[in-house]
Amino acid sequence: MKPSIPKGTRDFSSTEVAKRNYIFSTIKHSFENFGFQPIETPSFENSSTLMGKYGEEGDRLIFKILNSGDYLKKVDENLLVNKESQKVISKISEKALRYDLTVPFARYVVQHQNEITFPFKRYQIQPVWRADRPQKGRFREFYQCDADVVGSKSLWQEVEFVQLYDTVFSKLGLNGTTIKINNRKILSGIAEVIGASDKLIDFTVALDKLDKIGKEGVVKEMLEKGISDTAIEKVDPLFNFDGDNRTNLAALRDMLQSSEEGMKGVEELQFIINAIEELGLSSASLEIDVTLARGLNYYTGAIYEVAAPEGVKMGSIGGGGRYDDLTGIFGLKDVSGVGISFGLDRIYLVMEELGLFETVQLPKPKVLFLNFDADQSIAKVKAIKELRNNDIKSELYPDVASSNKQQKKQWKYATSREIDFVVTEVENGTLVVKDMNAGEQITCTVNELINKLQ
Amino acid sequence: MKPSIPKGTRDFSSTEVAKRNYIFSTIKHSFENFGFQPIETPSFENSSTLMGKYGEEGDRLIFKILNSGDYLKKVDENLLVNKESQKVISKISEKALRYDLTVPFARYVVQHQNEITFPFKRYQIQPVWRADRPQKGRFREFYQCDADVVGSKSLWQEVEFVQLYDTVFSKLGLNGTTIKINNRKILSGIAEVIGASDKLIDFTVALDKLDKIGKEGVVKEMLEKGISDTAIEKVDPLFNFDGDNRTNLAALRDMLQSSEEGMKGVEELQFIINAIEELGLSSASLEIDVTLARGLNYYTGAIYEVAAPEGVKMGSIGGGGRYDDLTGIFGLKDVSGVGISFGLDRIYLVMEELGLFETVQLPKPKVLFLNFDADQSIAKVKAIKELRNNDIKSELYPDVASSNKQQKKQWKYATSREIDFVVTEVENGTLVVKDMNAGEQITCTVNELINKLQ
Repeated sequence: MKPSIPKGTRDFSSTEVAKRNYIFSTIKHSFENFGFQPIETPSFENSSTLMGKYGEEGDRLIFKILNSGDYLKKVDENLLVNKESQKVISKISEKALRYDLTVPFARYVVQHQNEITFPFKRYQIQPVWRADRPQKGRFREFYQCDADVVGSKSLWQEVEFVQLYDTVFSKLGLNGTTIKINNRKILSGIAEVIGASDKLIDFTVALDKLDKIGKEGVVKEMLEKGISDTAIEKVDPLFNFDGDNRTNLAALRDMLQSSEEGMKGVEELQFIINAIEELGLSSASLEIDVTLARGLNYYTGAIYEVAAPEGVKMGSIGGGGRYDDLTGIFGLKDVSGVGISFGLDRIYLVMEELGLFETVQLPKPKVLFLNFDADQSIAKVKAIKELRNNDIKSELYPDVASSNKQQKKQWKYATSREIDFVVTEVENGTLVVKDMNAGEQITCTVNELINKLQ
Repeated sequence: MKPSIPKGTRDFSSTEVAKRNYIFSTIKHSFENFGFQPIETPSFENSSTLMGKYGEEGDRLIFKILNSGDYLKKVDENLLVNKESQKVISKISEKALRYDLTVPFARYVVQHQNEITFPFKRYQIQPVWRADRPQKGRFREFYQCDADVVGSKSLWQEVEFVQLYDTVFSKLGLNGTTIKINNRKILSGIAEVIGASDKLIDFTVALDKLDKIGKEGVVKEMLEKGISDTAIEKVDPLFNFDGDNRTNLAALRDMLQSSEEGMKGVEELQFIINAIEELGLSSASLEIDVTLARGLNYYTGAIYEVAAPEGVKMGSIGGGGRYDDLTGIFGLKDVSGVGISFGLDRIYLVMEELGLFETVQLPKPKVLFLNFDADQSIAKVKAIKELRNNDIKSELYPDVASSNKQQKKQWKYATSREIDFVVTEVENGTLVVKDMNAGEQITCTVNELINKLQ
């Protein structure tokens, strides 16, 4: 029996952990720098908290935990005989693994509303689980990194999230990202203008293909979906978006004049675009994208999505938006929220592709003491203690070599762990040190070695 | 419906997260300083990996994950009709939540044996789940912090783990811990000497009560358990252990002379005690405790347990030992391991009791900008950007106050989040700043504020 792990899950080697932690800590540092506070929620929630919050598909993909003890005892026999798998679930399972961080956050806010000072800026970096079919870049266990503010409708939050994306990606060296922004109210306005709220999704899906199939192709698809000629004509400026935010805003303003909600969306976008123009961004660019509609039923205002630098083939590496009634599902009305998420796994892949992990310190000792002579061991362990006290990672090869072969094994260990400095001997306070990169040997005291390495 | 979380689980507020992270990062830093490398394993494993590894009780306490889809389809109808809960488990559940970090680690080592350089020093800090009855200090989801070395029988590892405990607890300010040490071979030796291997557990349980019920009480209990008079006489020195390691070692040596295994255990203890005497400890003390028998069937050499500083009522805050055939269960023979674990939740409680969290930086902004005047907002956001660029956590109160009441709300927010510096106005590059601790107001430029706070 060769041991294995469940499909869609991963073991992480120490190199992978180090690289992942580098991303996590960069994100965390910026979250805190921007005034967000960390919270953590349990890995499993009561099923009633999660079920029904993510649609039918979501319910199916939630991992359920089997009750303990004689869990079948009270289940209706008929359900069992007829093997009614779906109906039996709620009888034998009361807990389920977290599916995202948003619903548990809403639950947290409602449950702890009396301990929280609003507006509440929280961040949360924890794993979530989905019984999805695993494929490249899609896992059954993966981390989400979310920052949200609840209890404020101020658009300065929207501005701040653009800055936050820019800050994190710049710090990671991921220059040239595009922060795409849209507003649900603009989409509603377009629906109003084309006179078909029910066709909005067909419309945005078709428009999204403009790059690939050109205006002609898009119009053809729209007509096929039953959107009228006159409707398409009314929103003609959308086919000529040239990427300049001010021009695009002006076009939207013209187009949506007859829709009050649409105009509200334009004002909101205008506010954010103006502020970011004043403030500047380090390495990202902000771009209006009217095809952006992620989680349409969920968001009520701004919608964000971040694209990796040009040339890297990868879906969005972040996304988010404003939702006006998140906590309503748990009985707390009128709490508006806005938040963004970072896609850890995709960011990792992009950084790997661009070679951005080179500066990450791998978790390995700086100095290895070989162990060829039992009489020297205690002197070596004493030297190691001094090095460690000065925060220089060091270790003793634990077993004393009693043969030439075993000595070679220790050198091989040093090479395969890519150790920088190898100490072979310690006698009367003098260390014999081999600099593995330079290939040269020096002798020095512990203090001299500490000074050299600090 | 008031939302809640499953019993035995916890939400962590930002203050709690900050304190917990302080402990985690102290442990992590020392682990890496000692040359240990992090790995991570999935939250759930194949059931076959976990079941049968923790005894019958353990099997019962493992959280099982229900299969997806029509999970009842292939289950034998008779099992369902008869409601054979236990027999049905393996038919409807193939995955289970991690119960500890040791078995997944053993699985990892066997699965990745060709990528690993031995001796392999790994650490792992991840949550585990147990369907235990929740009670004070016992949770259904909790973190374990483990460091282990596999692939070396050298006693220098045992020495290193004593140093590691001492280093971590000293860094946490948890001075005066006692690292208790024993050796499975000494326990086997005692069993040999008293001529009753099967009574060893009764024997150690009785001996452990020496402090409370005195020699007379202990002897009485031993006789009741069927340990003979002559046997008890042979190990009489155990009743007179005075806490001095050298004297105790001498007594053990005398007592166990007839047992080869017992003498091996004494030699091992002697090696560790000698080395630690040479090396010294910062704040912990090392103490032989022959009653220490945790996980008796598991450990084969050294056994550790750490007691909190005297005066603090708390069970052990750490433990570990050597196990000679950990990976054997997954088919890789002859890989000796030794490791220790830190009890995060108990360490947290002890530190809280001793007031050791005072220096922990809570995740809150250093500077809050009030938002009374929409015309000043952009200037404030620009100042905030400068502060953040200099790693000074700052934020703008998002909503503009349009009434006296709303202004008061902003001040209240500043107070309840214990903000140190509140900026009320920014005009022509001059900030009006209130030092909330000193209660005084100053005016300065952004750069002057940055200099003041750095």
